[in-house]
Amino acid sequence: MTLETLSTNKAHGGVQGVYRHDSRETGTAMTFAVFVPPHEPGEILSVLWYLSGLTCTHANVMEKGEYRAACAAEKIIFVAPDTSPRGDGVPDDPEGAYDFGLGAGFYVDAMQAPFATHYRMRSYIETELPALLAEHFPADMGRQAIMGHSMGGHGALTIGLRNPMRFRSVSAFSPIVAPSRVPWGEKALGGYLGADKAAWVDYDAVALIERGARLPALLVDQGDADNFLAEQLRTGLLEAACAAAGQSATIRMQPGYDHSYYFISTFMAEHVRWHAARLR
Amino acid sequence: MTLETLSTNKAHGGVQGVYRHDSRETGTAMTFAVFVPPHEPGEILSVLWYLSGLTCTHANVMEKGEYRAACAAEKIIFVAPDTSPRGDGVPDDPEGAYDFGLGAGFYVDAMQAPFATHYRMRSYIETELPALLAEHFPADMGRQAIMGHSMGGHGALTIGLRNPMRFRSVSAFSPIVAPSRVPWGEKALGGYLGADKAAWVDYDAVALIERGARLPALLVDQGDADNFLAEQLRTGLLEAACAAAGQSATIRMQPGYDHSYYFISTFMAEHVRWHAARLR
Repeated sequence: MTLETLSTNKAHGGVQGVYRHDSRETGTAMTFAVFVPPHEPGEILSVLWYLSGLTCTHANVMEKGEYRAACAAEKIIFVAPDTSPRGDGVPDDPEGAYDFGLGAGFYVDAMQAPFATHYRMRSYIETELPALLAEHFPADMGRQAIMGHSMGGHGALTIGLRNPMRFRSVSAFSPIVAPSRVPWGEKALGGYLGADKAAWVDYDAVALIERGARLPALLVDQGDADNFLAEQLRTGLLEAACAAAGQSATIRMQPGYDHSYYFISTFMAEHVRWHAARLR
Repeated sequence: MTLETLSTNKAHGGVQGVYRHDSRETGTAMTFAVFVPPHEPGEILSVLWYLSGLTCTHANVMEKGEYRAACAAEKIIFVAPDTSPRGDGVPDDPEGAYDFGLGAGFYVDAMQAPFATHYRMRSYIETELPALLAEHFPADMGRQAIMGHSMGGHGALTIGLRNPMRFRSVSAFSPIVAPSRVPWGEKALGGYLGADKAAWVDYDAVALIERGARLPALLVDQGDADNFLAEQLRTGLLEAACAAAGQSATIRMQPGYDHSYYFISTFMAEHVRWHAARLR
């Protein structure tokens, strides 16, 4: 698979790169960011996936996430994909809303026209991009972890729950924990998957836990001043599901923090170190 | 003086704020960012000024600078002003170039029409904004340091050299060290101050050192893969001036680093700690 390098910048002794490739799954060019920390020739490194939230590209966390110092110290490759297919012919929300379509792929394989052709972010993240990463970067695919923010927290939780042998640890900032039961999720899952909620279960972390899926390790940070907490995120549903299922989890309410990258960057290094301890 | 709060976000236990006020010096509304780390009621904290480079606003370092963790640990207030006046009636480069006019105030008090009315960034940074800071923030104005990047490195060096009793330490990333002798500086100083180079000396770090100005402590980091190094930055002129004058200085060439915030953020925490040691 061919990979085009859009930019590289030395940072924290490693290389922050931005790359583009023609995706088989989405049928579009896809852009993603990878930070490779300093390492010895021939050495292969653990991989931490970061899935972004609504409206984001690969660039938001790359610019504002403050992960490189910790990834360099822990020798972890940090991968930040885009949040949807983009480009000519990719359908968007009919009204251009921020919470569906472009920038809002919700990490699903869409089943509904006109979205099913390009909106294949589940297969892109779970299958295509890992193969590309393994081919082009010094990645130890036997040591992977995944994290995300908001919609990307939903992505990290559900991808982690569906692939418990692949990801040794899963963490999230401000995740959408039960998309089947909140407005953002109802719109997105309905629009991409259709009205039959049986197809939604694979994309709902709380529903997956209730059906028996488990994670090896789970860390969630949620700001209590987050405007989306009560209506869209509903962290309490995840706490209840974990408690009922016996899923071990560290779920922390962080007083005074909001939904922004000021919150994420505050706790990013701690999340990286937490993953690193489980990837060693 | 009245201060309008545009935004506040909790970060690293403190508050990252963005503020606006009507500036007496520039005759415009001016926006700036301040990070106040966690502290005890009534406590006053050291102040670190950060002056940004060409094209930047207060927001670039606020989003990409990765200073908050270190400022929280060291209990330092971090202040990031804008780089020029902006708004209706503020003249720009006649051709809209990035290196003069809006976003390119060069930290001078302009003497040439039509710039002299609004382009008073020297007095704004040296006089007006410190008074505003002292009035509205828990700032210990007896303990100040200053740093900057590129054009802002020029600003930090020259403001530091003109005010050696105020700033205990000065540092810079990729500074323009001798604007009188490089294209960016010749255009800016000529355009703002006029053709008589006698007026330029106050705004040229190397010239100030050659005339006897000194800094209590100086740290400079410069990437050797910086595209602007040879023509615009010319770090060697600062090294030579410091050596000839007996000015103590730590001037480091960092291999492989470029002019971007990926470079700045790599060494930011180290600069903050270096200032902190001198502010204690």
